[in-house]
Amino acid sequence: MALGLTLELRREADDIWKMIFEHPFVIELYTGVLPIEKFIYYLIQDYNYLVTMAKCFSLISAKSEYEISRIALELAYLDAITEMSNYEKILEKIGLRLRDVLEIEPAPTNVAYMSFLLSTCALANPIEALISLLPCFWSYMEIAEKHRDKLANNRNDLYVQWAQVYLSKEYRDLVERLRKVIDDNSHRVDRKTARYLFITASRFEYMFWDMSYKMEKWIV
Amino acid sequence: MALGLTLELRREADDIWKMIFEHPFVIELYTGVLPIEKFIYYLIQDYNYLVTMAKCFSLISAKSEYEISRIALELAYLDAITEMSNYEKILEKIGLRLRDVLEIEPAPTNVAYMSFLLSTCALANPIEALISLLPCFWSYMEIAEKHRDKLANNRNDLYVQWAQVYLSKEYRDLVERLRKVIDDNSHRVDRKTARYLFITASRFEYMFWDMSYKMEKWIV
Amino acid sequence: MALGLTLELRREADDIWKMIFEHPFVIELYTGVLPIEKFIYYLIQDYNYLVTMAKCFSLISAKSEYEISRIALELAYLDAITEMSNYEKILEKIGLRLRDVLEIEPAPTNVAYMSFLLSTCALANPIEALISLLPCFWSYMEIAEKHRDKLANNRNDLYVQWAQVYLSKEYRDLVERLRKVIDDNSHRVDRKTARYLFITASRFEYMFWDMSYKMEKWIV
Amino acid sequence: MALGLTLELRREADDIWKMIFEHPFVIELYTGVLPIEKFIYYLIQDYNYLVTMAKCFSLISAKSEYEISRIALELAYLDAITEMSNYEKILEKIGLRLRDVLEIEPAPTNVAYMSFLLSTCALANPIEALISLLPCFWSYMEIAEKHRDKLANNRNDLYVQWAQVYLSKEYRDLVERLRKVIDDNSHRVDRKTARYLFITASRFEYMFWDMSYKMEKWIV
Repeated sequence: MALGLTLELRREADDIWKMIFEHPFVIELYTGVLPIEKFIYYLIQDYNYLVTMAKCFSLISAKSEYEISRIALELAYLDAITEMSNYEKILEKIGLRLRDVLEIEPAPTNVAYMSFLLSTCALANPIEALISLLPCFWSYMEIAEKHRDKLANNRNDLYVQWAQVYLSKEYRDLVERLRKVIDDNSHRVDRKTARYLFITASRFEYMFWDMSYKMEKWIV
Repeated sequence: MALGLTLELRREADDIWKMIFEHPFVIELYTGVLPIEKFIYYLIQDYNYLVTMAKCFSLISAKSEYEISRIALELAYLDAITEMSNYEKILEKIGLRLRDVLEIEPAPTNVAYMSFLLSTCALANPIEALISLLPCFWSYMEIAEKHRDKLANNRNDLYVQWAQVYLSKEYRDLVERLRKVIDDNSHRVDRKTARYLFITASRFEYMFWDMSYKMEKWIV
Repeated sequence: MALGLTLELRREADDIWKMIFEHPFVIELYTGVLPIEKFIYYLIQDYNYLVTMAKCFSLISAKSEYEISRIALELAYLDAITEMSNYEKILEKIGLRLRDVLEIEPAPTNVAYMSFLLSTCALANPIEALISLLPCFWSYMEIAEKHRDKLANNRNDLYVQWAQVYLSKEYRDLVERLRKVIDDNSHRVDRKTARYLFITASRFEYMFWDMSYKMEKWIV
Repeated sequence: MALGLTLELRREADDIWKMIFEHPFVIELYTGVLPIEKFIYYLIQDYNYLVTMAKCFSLISAKSEYEISRIALELAYLDAITEMSNYEKILEKIGLRLRDVLEIEPAPTNVAYMSFLLSTCALANPIEALISLLPCFWSYMEIAEKHRDKLANNRNDLYVQWAQVYLSKEYRDLVERLRKVIDDNSHRVDRKTARYLFITASRFEYMFWDMSYKMEKWIV
């Protein structure tokens, strides 16, 4: 397989990713015209999502042999401790406290996406589990690359600060590392399952932006 | 707690359940005017859901002490073997084969609901896990009670046959048994968690009917 | 792989299995001279072991796609409901009640073996999990084949009745079915992991007989 | 419950713990006369045990609400990253490389203990899981307190260096923190289960020292 599994999956999801790149939430965030209440809604949902992401990596760590276990644990830690402190700083700036954010009920699409990742990471093999987590990390990097030029004229410091994380070398390295673990172990995954997980997670990425733009609520 | 935990939870979810009882899919199914393509859509989604339900009971069985473990295993078996054969008979009548049904991609709301149940049953304690499964079983029983009179004038034999399962003594006993296990072990669950799980599963029940009525598709 | 994975694994464990066949507990059980208190000790430990075995199959069922999930669930059910009723009848004959047996503390080697199987079935992929369960089922069949002639002169009806289960067509079919699922899916397991699991479970099989012969107790 | 659950459990296990304090491996390690090959055997087994311990905390983290999840993740990280680097330094001093150590087969008692912890942390509720991990941490602290005076005349620098970790303020704080989480959430555990887990883990602690002193091997 000359291409590498992750690149293959990326190509199959290309139509969905193109729609992500053009979603109004994404465009308005990078140009700076996104209404602040939509960003706050997004941040609150994403914080709950990050808590779940750390749990997902913990589950993968518990099921993997030494090397992958260690990488997964580092990523869990990065998520839960490092990245969350960044988030907490941003939350503070907009006058929200962590404790309150954790009390806010996740929206339906967020519950759906988090449950999809958690059940996959609890029950699938560790490489398949990593595949379900990849679209989140990878698409944020490509979004940043696609729209970085817009940041020059973005007047909302908060949005610029938020976006710059995904342009950093550290973040790019993280995505590369995740892809490499998956590509190096691609013989251990069922191709059809891999495709289902990557496509479904890509769909949920789109739906997460859409949920945030519409500030989705439970209908009952 | 004079009331019993399940009755308490049932009362807190009453607004949602009332909306379930009045959902057009439910009404039209019991009166017999539901378009057949909507019923087929529902059956296909529900079959995939049943496969997941059996896995949920298996997970609960693996985590419980002897008595509850045995009950959960029986319910998994009932779901996966007994109830599914009934389904397969209905599928056959409308010209669908099991193998094809399993290949049909679950709709977004179904993926959300199934993932919510699977992740709960994989990670929560067994009584909390049972609470997340209860609204499905219980609401089908109450729907049948509420609308049984409509069946007399229902000219669609398939719908009548489908509905009669939920009016049977066996089915009522099953619901009672589930409720009793939860009520007898209610000291082992966090009340806030219990409420969250019951309400969320009730919401997904409503959304499942709504998904079927609209024959929901993935937007990307 | 002309041979089939399970046959390969069986050959690698051959030295251990030969020691199992010649263990005094096994020989004396088939000739009928095994002291009854050792058999009762064995039965009590094995009953607890069976409860665990059903949980193991439940975990595998929860993690597998349709076909394997269904087989695993049937085996869980067979263990927990069918085989256990047989056990309960034998326990009754020797004056023991199920409730008492479940209260008896498992011996160290039994805790070790059960924990090894449970943790494997909770965390490994479903085919690897089945490999860890195979030595128990398969070695009981081979033991029965090797020593069946001894049963003719065995005067202990209880032992003969116990042994005949493993000579039945149903039991042989069960072992064949388990082997077939593993062989058909052998591309999904890491060979080194497979070997480790099969050898370790075979070692625990030997140690379980040895534990029973010595009526092992906790040293602290 | 004036006493606190952990203190209650500690008292019930007192006979076992007294035998741990007086085990020849422990005494000879603190006086410095323990044969070096027994210490190396111990280190190699304990390194594999630490890898498992990190997985156990990861599993607990994945199943817990925010506060406990974060603590468990920090402990997993501490185990897997910090404590293991210390171990790697000691292994280096005695001429062993990590890669070789991970290839060495764990001994039967180690497999038993690790499997017991893993299966408990995979299937029990998070507080019960923490109870199964407590005897390891806590008994090492009490061992160090009981025998610290012996270190003055201990001529084996390696042993002294190893022992000093367990006399540090950081280590004592870690044990206190673990106990506090359990005591604060003791209403969420079944008392009988708690007792079983604490006693069994205490027994395995004794057996682990005994395994190391006898340099246990697989009998088949």
